[in-house]
Order: sequence, then C-alpha cells, then structure tokens
Amino acid sequence: MSQTWWREACRPVDQNVREQALARQQQLTKPAGSLGRLEQLAVQLAGLQGELKPSVEQVWIAIFAGDHGVVAEGISAYPQAVTGQMLLNFVSGGAAISVLARQLNAQLEVIDLGTIDLALELPGVRHLRVGPGTANFAQVPAMTYEQGLQALQGGRESALRAAASGARLFIGGEMGIGNTTAASALACAVLGCPASELSGPGTGLDAAGVRHKAEVIERALLQHANLGNDPLQRLLCFGGFEIAALVGAYLGCAQAGVAVLVDGFICTVAALLATRINPGCRDWLLFGHRGAEPGHRRVLAELDAEPLLELGLRLGEGSGAALAVPVLRLACDLHGQMATFAEAAVADRPA
Amino acid sequence: MSQTWWREACRPVDQNVREQALARQQQLTKPAGSLGRLEQLAVQLAGLQGELKPSVEQVWIAIFAGDHGVVAEGISAYPQAVTGQMLLNFVSGGAAISVLARQLNAQLEVIDLGTIDLALELPGVRHLRVGPGTANFAQVPAMTYEQGLQALQGGRESALRAAASGARLFIGGEMGIGNTTAASALACAVLGCPASELSGPGTGLDAAGVRHKAEVIERALLQHANLGNDPLQRLLCFGGFEIAALVGAYLGCAQAGVAVLVDGFICTVAALLATRINPGCRDWLLFGHRGAEPGHRRVLAELDAEPLLELGLRLGEGSGAALAVPVLRLACDLHGQMATFAEAAVADRPA
Repeated sequence: MSQTWWREACRPVDQNVREQALARQQQLTKPAGSLGRLEQLAVQLAGLQGELKPSVEQVWIAIFAGDHGVVAEGISAYPQAVTGQMLLNFVSGGAAISVLARQLNAQLEVIDLGTIDLALELPGVRHLRVGPGTANFAQVPAMTYEQGLQALQGGRESALRAAASGARLFIGGEMGIGNTTAASALACAVLGCPASELSGPGTGLDAAGVRHKAEVIERALLQHANLGNDPLQRLLCFGGFEIAALVGAYLGCAQAGVAVLVDGFICTVAALLATRINPGCRDWLLFGHRGAEPGHRRVLAELDAEPLLELGLRLGEGSGAALAVPVLRLACDLHGQMATFAEAAVADRPA
Repeated sequence: MSQTWWREACRPVDQNVREQALARQQQLTKPAGSLGRLEQLAVQLAGLQGELKPSVEQVWIAIFAGDHGVVAEGISAYPQAVTGQMLLNFVSGGAAISVLARQLNAQLEVIDLGTIDLALELPGVRHLRVGPGTANFAQVPAMTYEQGLQALQGGRESALRAAASGARLFIGGEMGIGNTTAASALACAVLGCPASELSGPGTGLDAAGVRHKAEVIERALLQHANLGNDPLQRLLCFGGFEIAALVGAYLGCAQAGVAVLVDGFICTVAALLATRINPGCRDWLLFGHRGAEPGHRRVLAELDAEPLLELGLRLGEGSGAALAVPVLRLACDLHGQMATFAEAAVADRPA
C-alpha cells in the first residue's frame, strides 16, 4: 500500500461490454427507451462489472459511526450518547438499516470509528477507536493527519472486505450525532457556499436551531479560512471520522471495481470529497435517493447525479440507498431475462 | 350483483387501526418523520388492511389487453398485430411484466378483452372476446353499452379473484396498440382539456405524429360534444375495453378491500374515471410511478396523487407499479420490524 493510496487509479469501465449491453437493450420486447432509467442503469452496471448481464444480488452495507466535537456548540436535537446506543441497535437488528439489510439479504457490518465512550465494546461492532469523537471544528481542526489517515483506511478496508466477499454493490451508511453540521461545513468549504445555503434541520432542528447551526458553520469557515484548496485538508478540518471513512470506502471501491450506491446528504458530501481527491471514482458512484435535507439537492447537482428515489427521507444509516437496491436488481433482471423481438416473434416497428 | 354494482359503497378505512399505526411510527428508533413517505404508506396500508402491521407480500397483477379502432387514424408507431403478439409474450415469460412478476413472486393473469383477431386462442390467456377491438371513436362511440358492461365486469371479476386468493395489493396493467390515444381523449373529455395538453408520444411517435394524434382527438371530442357529463358514457365513447376493465377492477378492489397500486398514464386515466364514477374508491388507490407521457403529470395532479417512483418509464403493462412493490414491502417491513425506543434503550430527544 502506498502512503497515498487514495490517489491511485480507479478501475476503468469496460466500454466494450457497455456497448454490447446497449445493443442488447435495443433488442428487448419493448418500445426503444421505454424502460427509461432502468435501461441506463443496466448498461452502466454491465460496463462496471464487465458482464453483459450484470447482477447486484450480493450487496455489502457498511455503517460508519463517529462522534463530533462540534456538538458542544448545541447544533443537534439529540444527545450525543445516541451514537453509541444506535450502534447497539444496528447489531441487535432493530434499526431501520438492520431491517432493510435483512430483507435485502445484504451483508451488514458496523464500524465504530470513535465515539465519546472510547471504552465502548459491543459484540458484532468493529471498534477502530480513532479518537473520542472529533475535536470541535468551530475552534480547531476536527482531526489530526494521523486520525484522518486511520479513518480513510478504515473505510478502504471495508471496501476491500466487500470486494473479497464477492459483493457487486457497496452501500456506506453513517451514524453520528452532529454529522449534518460537519457535512454542511465540509460542503461549504469545498463549494465556496455560504453556510445558510447548505444548513438544514438534520434529524429535527427547528428554524431557530437551523439559524444557529448556520452561524456556527459560518464562524468555523472564517476560523479556517486559510486552509487552502486541498480537499484532503478540508476533510481533516471539518469532517467526521465516519465521513472520512466513507471517502476511503468509496475510493477503495472504485479502485477494487465494486459499484457504490451513495445514500443521503452526508454520504453525498463524502462522495463529493472522493471525486475531488480522485476524479476517476465518479464512474463507480450511483445515487440512491434525494433526501429531505435541503443541501442535498445542491451537492447532487454539483456531482451531476440523478438519484433513483425521492421519498422525503432524512434518516441516514444507508437507508435510502438500501431502499433503491430492488430498483437496481429489477433493472438487471429485466435486462438479463426479457425476450428479444426475435425470440418472442413480436414485430418491432418499421425502421 | 346489482345492475349498477359499480356505484355500491367501497369498503371504509379502519380509522382506529390507522391511528394505532401512526402512534407506533412515533415510537420507532428514528427521528420522528425521518422515513418520510414510507411512514405514510405503512400507516395508510394499516388503515386499509385493518392490521397494525400490514403486509403486501401477496401481490396480484392482471394485464388487460384490447385493440382500438382509432388505430385506423394512424396514431401509433406499431402495427396492431403487436397486441396479440405481446399477449403470447406475457404468458411465455419474456415481457417486462413477466420478468417483474416472477421476481416479485406475484400472481400474474393475462386477460384479452378483445383484439382484432377474435379467434386468438393462447394457453394461459383468458379470452373474453368483448369485440374485435373497439370501434373508431373518431367516427362513432368506441363501444356499446353492453360491451362496456362486459369489460367493466371482466375487470371486477379479476379483482374478486385477487381478493379470493388473499392478495393484499392489486396491480392492473394494460396492453393495446393505440391506447394512449384513447386514454388522452377520455381524460380530455373528463377534464375539459384541449387535446394538445394531454397528447404525447406514447410508445414512440415523433413530433409530427403527436400533432396528428392531437388533431384526431380534437376532432373526436367535437364529434361527441353532446355526450353530457356522465363519466360512464364518456368511458363507453372513448375508452378501450382494457381501460374499462381497469375501471371495473379498481372499483371491485375498493369494494372488496384490496389496495390498488396504479401504473402509468393509461391506468391513471382509468383511476380518474373510477373516482368520477364512485369517489369512495380513492382511498384504495396508491400510485406507483410518474411516467414519461406528458399528460400523466396533469392527471395525477387532478387525483391529488403523489407517485412513489419517477424513472422515465413509458412501457405500460403494469411495469412501473410492479417496480414500486419493493418500496411498499420495505415500508411494511420497517413499520413492523423496527425496535421502539423503549425496546432498544435508545434515548429519544427531550419532548
């Protein structure tokens, strides 16, 4: 592993198989283009997997959790202890993503990058203990260089486990009280937006809470105004451990050749960072849903990403991406199993 | 059966169970409202099924097919023989809806209301032979009163078979070369729209084809301008046999207590007619997707319907509704299987 593995080349798309898949779509017994997005998805997955008839039966879901020092600024509706409590809920099977992973027959792994209780020890959870949550980025950078590398590497190792298991689709989820604040600050720093444009209610702030959150972010952006343009530096300054892990996971997937289904606002900000660090990863990123957090639309637009679902979700945990898995699977089933005009003896329209 | 069964009362929603389901949603380990549309869906299905934890595992898909006399006006890109050829493809397993029904483990039935070849006899297809396609509504009403009743009844009987089988969700699909023209004319007549507003490319007309289609519809609307306001009369005048069957199926489902997932433009026009004939059916109608046909948005708005998916589909066959089934199923799974705050010992935010 090189010291800067994240810059190494991503796997190229198989353009030859992609063209074959496109040709196959034209022969299936339906008016050309009538399956809309599903046709594009099947063709894209064919190119990524190098398989004329792609499959996303094997899905890997990794939940990355971490605590955030910026919670000291009063930017969340929930107490910080919830991060650890939800870790237990994930592995006990009672959280939304636990139910979804079970129903989708997906592999679920839960990775604690670092919560306020560094002694936390939960069976079934990987505790990486990068730190007792991040530092408060309203005052100092959220993490050190070493912590950032550990978190990136934690995500990459999850991607490599997914690849080794034969997974054809990787979903990263996140849990961390305060992490919409970190994601908003990070996106503002990268996009040069005012905080008000990317600050939203998160899991349930009222209008006054959102205003306060935006003020905290605006102050932090000023505090770190001399950071320069390096996306990695920005990630270290504003990111959470779980956000850095998501960046590492997405880059690891693109290098190992596993397609990624990106979840909501926080994951999309991680995807933005991943593309700024290593633009070649963009081909490997599919987008599961457009969530209720107002900044999500802006960050998706920046990535030229058109998500599959829009259901007003604002949960995180990878839940929106998980909900889109059946759409991808059915796109592959239609592509692989429909009859061609010739096979079914159905008249195509005159050329 | 009364002579006007379609006006009889629809089953009422169980408001008591609905309230209980709403209360349960507030207790699940997630920020209140964070599952967006999925929460509303689970609560609605609970009220419809009278079950605190609803289920849509058992799904019934009925494809209604028929030919259209208005094809003589040159309004379709495909030859009329395709209707019959696709019937064979449905039961042979090669059509999009065949693949989807198989993957969803749904019951699929295929009902031929009347195609140009009245002698058509395909194993696995129910041939009702209401007529050799409809008459050309650009000249005369599409069907007689007796034919209309037969088609409505054909749909109702499918709904009753679904109910008897224990199905908890009914999807109606349609196949019929020329049927976007019939659906557009019908919707224009009901909504008082100009034909240009609701005419679109269907399965693949170019701009000149769409203009011609709108002219044919406009002429037909003038021809039948003295029809009066009775929705049933309008259905007989402009509808296809398969559109009337969909209306009968939706009304039969609402009376028998089976929730309906409405498919694309043509099915949504049938849903509009069903609500005009018997407004109580509206509670039982869920909407699977917003399709690419431009008039779909307008008809959905008229029904105050917010579909689950938007994937640029324009296939019909019930395919868009089928694609939304996993979203409904996962909404039920989340509602039924997630832990409550008390069960998981997770802190809810302070009230």
